[in-house]
This record gives sequence, structure tokens and C-alpha cells, in this order.
Amino acid sequence: MAAASSPAAITCRAAVAWAPGQALVMEEVEVAPPEAMEIRVKVVSTSICRSDVSQWQSKAQPDLFPRIFGHEASGVVESVGEGVAEFQVGDHVLTVFIGECMSCKHCVSGKSNMCQKLGLERRGVMHSDQKTRFSIRGEPVYHYCAVSSFSEYTVVHSGCAVKINPAVPMDRICLLSCGVSAGLGAAWRVADISKGSSVVIFGLGTVGLSVAQGAKLRGASMIIGVDTNPEKQEKGKAFGVTDFINPEELMEPVPQVVKRLTNGGADYSFECVGDTGVVSTALQSCSDGWGLTVTLGVPKAKPEVSAHYALLLSGRTLKGSLFGGWRPKSDLPLLVDKYANKEIQVDDLVTHDMSFGEINKALELMLENRCLRCVIHMPQ
Amino acid sequence: MAAASSPAAITCRAAVAWAPGQALVMEEVEVAPPEAMEIRVKVVSTSICRSDVSQWQSKAQPDLFPRIFGHEASGVVESVGEGVAEFQVGDHVLTVFIGECMSCKHCVSGKSNMCQKLGLERRGVMHSDQKTRFSIRGEPVYHYCAVSSFSEYTVVHSGCAVKINPAVPMDRICLLSCGVSAGLGAAWRVADISKGSSVVIFGLGTVGLSVAQGAKLRGASMIIGVDTNPEKQEKGKAFGVTDFINPEELMEPVPQVVKRLTNGGADYSFECVGDTGVVSTALQSCSDGWGLTVTLGVPKAKPEVSAHYALLLSGRTLKGSLFGGWRPKSDLPLLVDKYANKEIQVDDLVTHDMSFGEINKALELMLENRCLRCVIHMPQ
Repeated sequence: MAAASSPAAITCRAAVAWAPGQALVMEEVEVAPPEAMEIRVKVVSTSICRSDVSQWQSKAQPDLFPRIFGHEASGVVESVGEGVAEFQVGDHVLTVFIGECMSCKHCVSGKSNMCQKLGLERRGVMHSDQKTRFSIRGEPVYHYCAVSSFSEYTVVHSGCAVKINPAVPMDRICLLSCGVSAGLGAAWRVADISKGSSVVIFGLGTVGLSVAQGAKLRGASMIIGVDTNPEKQEKGKAFGVTDFINPEELMEPVPQVVKRLTNGGADYSFECVGDTGVVSTALQSCSDGWGLTVTLGVPKAKPEVSAHYALLLSGRTLKGSLFGGWRPKSDLPLLVDKYANKEIQVDDLVTHDMSFGEINKALELMLENRCLRCVIHMPQ
Repeated sequence: MAAASSPAAITCRAAVAWAPGQALVMEEVEVAPPEAMEIRVKVVSTSICRSDVSQWQSKAQPDLFPRIFGHEASGVVESVGEGVAEFQVGDHVLTVFIGECMSCKHCVSGKSNMCQKLGLERRGVMHSDQKTRFSIRGEPVYHYCAVSSFSEYTVVHSGCAVKINPAVPMDRICLLSCGVSAGLGAAWRVADISKGSSVVIFGLGTVGLSVAQGAKLRGASMIIGVDTNPEKQEKGKAFGVTDFINPEELMEPVPQVVKRLTNGGADYSFECVGDTGVVSTALQSCSDGWGLTVTLGVPKAKPEVSAHYALLLSGRTLKGSLFGGWRPKSDLPLLVDKYANKEIQVDDLVTHDMSFGEINKALELMLENRCLRCVIHMPQ
């Protein structure tokens, strides 16, 4: 139940997916007022993440259309629901696709970002009441990850937004809402890369390049990037990649090359392609005895990870990383500050700045692997 | 090349496997003198480990027969080869199936037991010259893990033996040569179990019970044992198991029961069955966010470990453990001292004491899961 002072519904433009893979359509949508513990956010910038595109293409949940995708975003609080003390109208925020309630077993553990109240929402609705806040002519329009930033306004749970330093540019910092943080956290928090170590990264997209940046900042002495796109060689260098391998130009298996370069196998390997088949290659590329493989990718196809048992028995570790292990509310403001202090690089990951009306072009670029991040500038 | 003072060959009895799965035959074998950096050991006690039986049954390496199995053993140094300064005739030793050369990248790292010179030997020969030290009528008899303790005398590399406190009983301490140490190390060194945590162990053989013992000594508050043999319920209690699950008596999947008992999933799970299919169940049984699954078993069939990617992405870690991560020379003497000080329990894992002549009966007991450890007392 909304408070007596609750604001009215807003009608605004949103890019609506009516069916899997079909071009988004600009629609007038009604955005309900925030319910208790929710906030309504005027989206300022939203960048396109690979998983927006994968889920838009996926035919696995046809019932969840029409749907508004987008989850990597920055915005300004427009109104707050009952009980929200943390945010005020005008606050700058990042949205997050996994929330932090600060009270469940996981949130209080200090060692998990798997909030049990505000975890990854897969049913296209809000966590609290399993309903949508979007509608068109009274019919529900489904959410994505309880964020749905491909809309001028959206409603998110207050546990799924993070207040940030208002001095940072909204159209760049939105990348910390998902991809860049996922990569940095995998390197720093999940793998905890040590100085002088060797690292191999499979897939040099935004996430993989951010792992490279994280590894470089930790003082890794060798950072091997693996990608089938030859253009990633130059891009990789800017983020710390010291050696580049294009599997399509090799006459031998990638692990063999990595083992030669690293004298036996890398200390750390990262799967950032989103291909479960690469996990085994990543394990083979790291060292017996202490090699750690971190898998970050969400697979587009085969969901089973498999590997020969001997790779594990000989002392390797396989670890998953969602959002780099960061607890969004507790940790994200620190990353934003690092950006403000120019300690981390984000801007160079933006390959395209586009208007909201060009969003389908941005999705196409991602689908065809012709961009890193396209930032959509919402009408202000 | 042996030293001038090199001892002569010895003729003694050994239990020889002439073909996969065929009953061992007591044969007179010739045991060559130790080569440089090797020692010849008079075996005192050898216990039967699951992998002796698996490899004896396996048809994967028919060329390596005739062969002498056995690797979990204690003995006395009978003679030493050229260059051996570490051992003297009469020293009490444990044999180890993975050695420690003390000089390779892994041995000096302090964080690996994957010695690159004396690692797991799979070709039935000695590491140094790829030849055997056993023969019958001049024809080679192959080794197993470069140990071959089913013989009155055997030759091992000095890096594959560990000098131990001569006060401890040889017929019990032999269990530390493999199984018991593997379990304790998985709990202490690989998982590093913390006080008050919850643990689930799949398979309560010698290794699984030793994991339980390790967990108990670390102060785990709940230790769940999973085994299809109902007799393991009582045995488990003696080693710290607080809750027992027999999957064959359940109407629901094991992970569901474990999650209920542990309020969401165990902190640690251990695969000690030697069934790669169980690895996924072990992952499912541990907690999102921080759950750690350790796989110790050597699978008898399907060598591929597989698991749904989401189990990893939600914050679980999968780690392999060979010999509990212990570096044999550096760490095993400490375990032996713990036994001498009655800090760890070994004796209760011995279910049968048998003479060398009864070795086929001991293999049968293991094959039929009717024992924990059978100790073979060699003629002295």
C-alpha cells in the first residue's frame, strides 16, 4: 500500500520488446508510483549489456513479453515509496540487478552478494509483490532483472539502487552498474590476483577488458588476452593485456600456447565469453597445484560446465563470479569513488553514444559484436 | 649407475597381478638394488586403498602387466642408492604415491604438492629411468605409482619416502601414507574448515571418515554423512558425523535434505565416492555465496565432472584435492606426530588385520565394500 503522499503514475516513453528478438518499439507506458520501499527513477543513461541482448533473443520465457529490458543504468530519484529513508528526490543512483537487503543471512555474512530477498529476479516482476509497475492500456509490461532501464522512468526496489557521488558523469558511470564492476570484482575480490602473477582472459569484451584492468592494477606480470576478433589486440593493450592470442590463427590448442608462455600454466584464468565449453579450456590453461579459473559468463547455449576430473584433482580451483562478488550497496560507492579519482578507467569502454531513439541500432551492434558498450542517453 | 658399494639384488615374495582383475599370484621376484637417489625398503605393513583395486580391475593399461600394486605402506630402509644422504639403513619410512623433490617450481612454491619430477607415475616404471626394479626370470614386472608395496621388498625414489618417528606402530601408521591423510588434508588444508560451520560428506569410506574427523577437530557444528551403506551410520558417529543420510531411504533429493538441515546449504561439501556424478550433487548441497565443494575421489567410470553453470555463478567454488594438498616430505611427519600424540584417530579405520598370504581376500573385501582398511602384515 502506497503512502498518502504517494506520487501519481507517470506516462512516458519506453522501448518495449513485444516478442523475443523483435525490434523494440517506442511506446507510451504508464509507470506506477513506487510501492513501499521502492523508488521511481528518471533514467539518465543506460548502457547495453550482453545479457540484455541474450534475454531479448531468448525464446525461453515467451510469457514474459511485452517486456522492458535494460539493467546497466544511472539515474535520478524522482519519487520515493513509503518507508524509504535512504533516498531523497534528486539523489543520483546506479541501478543494480542484484540487490542488497542488508538483513538476510547472506547480506549480514559479509562474504556473499546472493541477497535472499532481492536476488536476481527472473520472472519479470518486482520482488515485493510479484507484479509489474509498467502497463500499456492497463495490461502489464514485464520487467527485466527488476530494473528495466530502457524506459524514461522506472521503479526499482530501494535495495536495488545505490546512491552515488553526484559529481561523476552519469553517462559513463552507468557502466559500473554491471559489466565493469563484474570484471574488476572477478580480478580483485573473487580471484584476489597477486602481484607478479600470470593471468589469461578468454573474451575481451567489456567484462574481460575490465578483468585485464583489474589484473594490471594488482601488478600481474603477464596478462594474456584470448579473442577471435583481431581488433581486440590493440584494445586489449590499453587495458593491460601484454600478450594476445587469436585462437583462429593458431595451429595448436590455446592451453598449449598459454603453458609455454607461462612456463606451465597461468596462475589465474577467466572465462568471459559466456560459453561453458571455454571453461574447460580455461582450466587447462592454468597451472597445476594452484591455478584458479573464474567463470563469469552467462552461457547463451549449453548450460552445463564440464571438465576432466584430473584438472581439478591436480590442484585447480573453479569458482563462479556474479557481479564480481561485490555487494552492491556496500561496495559500489567505493568503485565510483575510484572512478572519480581516476584510479580506474571506464570511458574507453564506451564505443558508441546514442540517443534513446537509436536503441535498436545499439542492440544490433551488440548482437553482431561490433561494440563494447553503447551508452543510450535518455531524453532529459 | 649404482655406486661401487651398491647392494646386490634381492629375491623375495611379491603378490603379482598377471592380468587385470585376475587374482594376485605369490611369485619369487628379483628386486634390483636401488639406483642413484633411490632406496630399497623392506615393507612392514601395507594397507589396501580403493585405487589399488580400481587399477587392478581396470583394463585401460593391459601392457603394464605383470604388475605389483600397493602404495599405502610403511617399512624399513634396507639399503640406499648413490647420493642418498637423507636416509640410513634401518630408518622407518612411509611410502608416498606423489613425491617431493624439494627443488622444482611446485615444491619451492610452498603451495602445491604437484612435484614436477616425482608426480603421480602412471606408466608402471620408476621416474628416473623409465625402467622397472622388479623382474621375474629377467622379464620386467611393472610398478604401481612408483611404490609397489605388495612385495616383501620394493625400491622407491628417496623423494617418494618420508622418514617417520620410529615409535609409532608401523601396522597402523601406514594408513597415513594415503587415505587418512587425504581426508584430513581435504578438511584442513584444502577446505580450511572453520569453527561452527556445516559440512556434508558424500561417501563414508576411509577418506570420507577422515574428512569427518578433520571437520570435527576444526569444530564444525554439523557434519552430515551420506552413504548408501546403513552400517556407516554408527561408524560415522565415531568420527564426528552428526547426521546421517542414506540416499536409498529418501523420498527426495539429497541436496533438498541437506538444505533443510543447514538452513540453505552446507558451508562445505566433499565428494569421496569416486563418482563424478556426485560432484554436481555435492555442489547443489552447499550454500550459494560461499559454498565450497572439494572433490577427492578418483572416478571408476565417467571422467568428466559436470555441473550447471548457475551453481558456480551463484558463488560456489569447486576444488580438487589430491593427497589432501599435503606436501609429503614437508607435512607428513607432522601428521605422524599428531597420531603419536593421540590427536588423530587412525586405528579404528582398520577393520581387518591379515597376513600377506591373504591379500586376495583383502582385495575382495574392498571390491565388495565390506571393509574400511585391511592391513597386510608382511613377513618379518
